[in-house]
Amino acid sequence: MSTDGAAASERTRVRRGAHRAVYDRADLLDVLGAGLVAHVGVLTDDGPLVLPMAYGHDHHRIYLHGAAGNGLLRAAIGAQVCVTVTLVDGLVIARTPFHDSMNHRSVVVRGLAEEVLGSERQSALRAITDHVVANWDTGRPPHAAELRRTLVVSVPLDEMSGKVRTGDPGDETHDLTGPHWAGTVPLRRQWGTPQPSEDLEEGIGPPAAVQALGGRILR
Amino acid sequence: MSTDGAAASERTRVRRGAHRAVYDRADLLDVLGAGLVAHVGVLTDDGPLVLPMAYGHDHHRIYLHGAAGNGLLRAAIGAQVCVTVTLVDGLVIARTPFHDSMNHRSVVVRGLAEEVLGSERQSALRAITDHVVANWDTGRPPHAAELRRTLVVSVPLDEMSGKVRTGDPGDETHDLTGPHWAGTVPLRRQWGTPQPSEDLEEGIGPPAAVQALGGRILR
Repeated sequence: MSTDGAAASERTRVRRGAHRAVYDRADLLDVLGAGLVAHVGVLTDDGPLVLPMAYGHDHHRIYLHGAAGNGLLRAAIGAQVCVTVTLVDGLVIARTPFHDSMNHRSVVVRGLAEEVLGSERQSALRAITDHVVANWDTGRPPHAAELRRTLVVSVPLDEMSGKVRTGDPGDETHDLTGPHWAGTVPLRRQWGTPQPSEDLEEGIGPPAAVQALGGRILR
Repeated sequence: MSTDGAAASERTRVRRGAHRAVYDRADLLDVLGAGLVAHVGVLTDDGPLVLPMAYGHDHHRIYLHGAAGNGLLRAAIGAQVCVTVTLVDGLVIARTPFHDSMNHRSVVVRGLAEEVLGSERQSALRAITDHVVANWDTGRPPHAAELRRTLVVSVPLDEMSGKVRTGDPGDETHDLTGPHWAGTVPLRRQWGTPQPSEDLEEGIGPPAAVQALGGRILR
């Protein structure tokens, strides 16, 4: 991973495990591309709130959506938020628990959330819908009423950083000749076969992109 | 899922998709037991910050740890935090993007974070270490210096709620006879075979619990 610093700001500089920091924009976008959900943090009157949300991005902004009255998104608009995407790739089991870890990739985006309005709404919703598997164009287009009931929010991808851990545990030298095992346990994530809805009429097959997901191992 | 409300407070009552809300303590602990990482949200001078962290729990408190100088944990101590655990179980592809969703399980814990001190530190670190696979007792016990370099924080499991979505998309009645496919794509997560560290001496096999992980499908 290169570390050109292009996408980092002081508040997204990685403090802990700095040797695992990722600042290269292409690498960060790779992680955002591979993730399934974002954990979105906002400040509410009751303290911080973190909820999982679907997301999409267009290389410049990350997009979130919800019902028009979604409390977290309402609190996000015009405020500083944090959007974090994490992929767990495996367990790291060291000779001593102090060095246990997880292999993982994560990206943290911090910035001012804005409501997405006008024509950008359609492309933002498309980005969210198509994020994991493209199905915007193969479904029934949204009704105007559905669009009105949907709140879309974006955060600029200007301040972000990531962390990537791969490989073996980093044990102490004095433990290397000890009796304890050390290694990793990879986590494999794989899409199963698409399952038709119980209320689906006969003779309708899944769109090609959805069909192609079946059996695919997630990277 | 039962909804006895025992673990919910006003600020953890589920607002959106309330029919998917989970408040039963045993159900919430099941989700915490199945999760791999928590997304921990704190308020910093720069706005909310959300980072992924390993965790453990003892049914009463959820435990987090990090380096003694860990900025997020330092900000958490004595403050309100949010700890969110999410498992993605599959994609829900509706006849129209408006009803696309993900099958998932999530738990949100909100509360006052406290530093864990004294004898509780050891049991907290054990709970974190043993959360995914028990390996505290099969590794080299921590040195006093390692314990001093570790910060342990807990949040009470008093205010929490969850959300569980399973099954088919919830399409509009007028779309059921349309031409569009609807269904789900399950996500399978499976542990691979434990891989010995490159610096592991010959003849040391993994602990039985780690060995038994290999090939296991995560629930």
